[in-house]
Amino acid sequence: MPPRPIVALLTDFGLEDPYVAAMKGVLLSLNPDAVVVDVTHQVRPQRVEQGAFLLEQVVPHLPPWTVFVAVVDPGVGSERRALALQTPRAFFVGPDNGLLSPALPEAVRERAGDGPAPVPLPAGYRAVAIENERYFRHPVSATFHGRDIFAPAAAYLTLGTPLAALGPPLDSVLALPPFRARPLPDGTLLGRVLHVDRFGNLVTSVRHRDLPAQRLEVEVCGQRVPGLVRTYAEGEGLCALIGSAGYLEIALPMGSAARALGADVGAEVRVRPL
Amino acid sequence: MPPRPIVALLTDFGLEDPYVAAMKGVLLSLNPDAVVVDVTHQVRPQRVEQGAFLLEQVVPHLPPWTVFVAVVDPGVGSERRALALQTPRAFFVGPDNGLLSPALPEAVRERAGDGPAPVPLPAGYRAVAIENERYFRHPVSATFHGRDIFAPAAAYLTLGTPLAALGPPLDSVLALPPFRARPLPDGTLLGRVLHVDRFGNLVTSVRHRDLPAQRLEVEVCGQRVPGLVRTYAEGEGLCALIGSAGYLEIALPMGSAARALGADVGAEVRVRPL
Amino acid sequence: MPPRPIVALLTDFGLEDPYVAAMKGVLLSLNPDAVVVDVTHQVRPQRVEQGAFLLEQVVPHLPPWTVFVAVVDPGVGSERRALALQTPRAFFVGPDNGLLSPALPEAVRERAGDGPAPVPLPAGYRAVAIENERYFRHPVSATFHGRDIFAPAAAYLTLGTPLAALGPPLDSVLALPPFRARPLPDGTLLGRVLHVDRFGNLVTSVRHRDLPAQRLEVEVCGQRVPGLVRTYAEGEGLCALIGSAGYLEIALPMGSAARALGADVGAEVRVRPL
Repeated sequence: MPPRPIVALLTDFGLEDPYVAAMKGVLLSLNPDAVVVDVTHQVRPQRVEQGAFLLEQVVPHLPPWTVFVAVVDPGVGSERRALALQTPRAFFVGPDNGLLSPALPEAVRERAGDGPAPVPLPAGYRAVAIENERYFRHPVSATFHGRDIFAPAAAYLTLGTPLAALGPPLDSVLALPPFRARPLPDGTLLGRVLHVDRFGNLVTSVRHRDLPAQRLEVEVCGQRVPGLVRTYAEGEGLCALIGSAGYLEIALPMGSAARALGADVGAEVRVRPL
Repeated sequence: MPPRPIVALLTDFGLEDPYVAAMKGVLLSLNPDAVVVDVTHQVRPQRVEQGAFLLEQVVPHLPPWTVFVAVVDPGVGSERRALALQTPRAFFVGPDNGLLSPALPEAVRERAGDGPAPVPLPAGYRAVAIENERYFRHPVSATFHGRDIFAPAAAYLTLGTPLAALGPPLDSVLALPPFRARPLPDGTLLGRVLHVDRFGNLVTSVRHRDLPAQRLEVEVCGQRVPGLVRTYAEGEGLCALIGSAGYLEIALPMGSAARALGADVGAEVRVRPL
Repeated sequence: MPPRPIVALLTDFGLEDPYVAAMKGVLLSLNPDAVVVDVTHQVRPQRVEQGAFLLEQVVPHLPPWTVFVAVVDPGVGSERRALALQTPRAFFVGPDNGLLSPALPEAVRERAGDGPAPVPLPAGYRAVAIENERYFRHPVSATFHGRDIFAPAAAYLTLGTPLAALGPPLDSVLALPPFRARPLPDGTLLGRVLHVDRFGNLVTSVRHRDLPAQRLEVEVCGQRVPGLVRTYAEGEGLCALIGSAGYLEIALPMGSAARALGADVGAEVRVRPL
């Protein structure tokens, strides 16, 4: 017996509203065997880039029988397309606004420049615009495609409906460039805070593999933080370390780096070899 | 094989406490095949009307093999009855304080006047007071019937226990009137904000179908908002539109209408044809 | 057919981050039949004692086919051991820092003195240090053992992997003493606030069974509260009652005792017979 299909949900809908439950109801009505996993529903309202960053962190950990549904959708009801993507790894469903970028290989995302920009789909990847109304929930609300278009599309994919049935094929999709810092001429890496986690850790766009091998120093909000420690327990005061997703973090063990520094998503981060 | 039964939970218990998990433990101990769906646990503490409004929005989206368990229960341990309801659509379990009103047809809820008030059950609807201690979890806490009475009752219903086994039949239950605005002599509709969602949208008691066909204006907190736009993306500044549950909303795209207006649940809303 | 195994998760990871979903992905990749129950992810960051207190409240309500995974882990990546415990009731997985104390009998926890301190395992209880890298997810992050060590260990236990396969046996584990008040010479019970729930109720370390039979008075934050009422509905103003887990609570019906008193976790509570 094949494993029960997983539908992994990431939205900015929060948990105080009934929106997520309405999506789950639609999913389970169509496929009672689906297992729903909440990735997070607390992406900041309409922050597509933050949503993509968080999605990227879980994609490697869900099994291949997962359909990812991501909805951070300021353009809902406008001309933006509804997307279903099939990759060698899994299915992805959501608005065509860059949110689903983690479905794409890094080399393809590079082509988005400073993005979001359209990129061509590589071999082994297929995409359609979800337009076949037969697979919608009716009537379709102009403000809630998560419930009426994305959730049903995901449910039909778990039931074995072929991708091509959902709508016309697409050659390109909107993508965000890879999350990473920009190297400056003097050897500094210039990155940004992409996420502040519950512990007040500042998760940055600086990738482990881009760091110089020697000792380094991180500057954020005018403060210099020596790097790197290996674990939170080793840190004394503000410290820098590589987080579990492979990005540089600034942390304050038993405290909140975000609060101590007054830093938030978007803050500039500079990494310098010493 | 019939689908695995769904138990949909709506409470004001929040997620920081172990109360919801205790309910799930009781449910899964009795019926390991049950699938639990969280509607929301962030109803404002003891706000029965808000809970009923949120419940109403998901009832149509869950499949018929769902047992809804709703617990917003300021009267727990007092004389208020514990209710189990069977409707043509699903089962509903919770305190008899109006919270389960969305289980009832609109015409029946009309009879609650300004409610909550007792209304007679229509044909095809049955209710019992959950009093048969054989179906309780023991010992029964005086402060947590969600765990000790409602969760076990729901689990037994998913197992096929007949409604009548849970306790004596009831002819009437407490109901809230339908959520809707009151028409004033001058043609104005007078409604209220029933919910503020995560985006700061003000969800009101003004129903789509009660709106005049012509252009209109919405007044809330002393501010006039022109109506209607079709999607959030169309709005510029404060705007009014029909939300995904069929009620009038006041929104501020890429911002929060609640914050901009200083409005909260209970605020008066007036809709005037222009 | 045996029931689908339950994995109950308690962490301080919050819900805004993808950490919990990464753990669920790892679990479901290894055992697609597992049913995940969220106990809570909102333990205050790194508050091991609060985590243990909340865990204690749900352990009795989950069925015996449950593996509890608890992660409040300020020492992650340091020398603290990773623990898997088998008790007559269930499996428990998490850091060896006292968090898993609710797995142990009260008489054993007594031996921790003012704890956390090592206590010997009683008959019928077995523990191992999770060290067999064959059961890790690789590469192992230095900061996220929840995903790379604890989640896989739990998944393998649900699949029938013997406890002993996970690592070398342990004779003792770190434990917290039982949650309870200290009797003073004058008959006063001296306790603490261990948790503030969503309703602002102060849940204390004073156990029901330690209370004197006669009327009593509770003092907290310089304010005297008469006791006991039986239900929240009976209380008028600040009141004291026995909560659903058997501990004394101070509540303010239709309000928040925490806000009214300015009280938080750690506040001293004195109970005096009258």
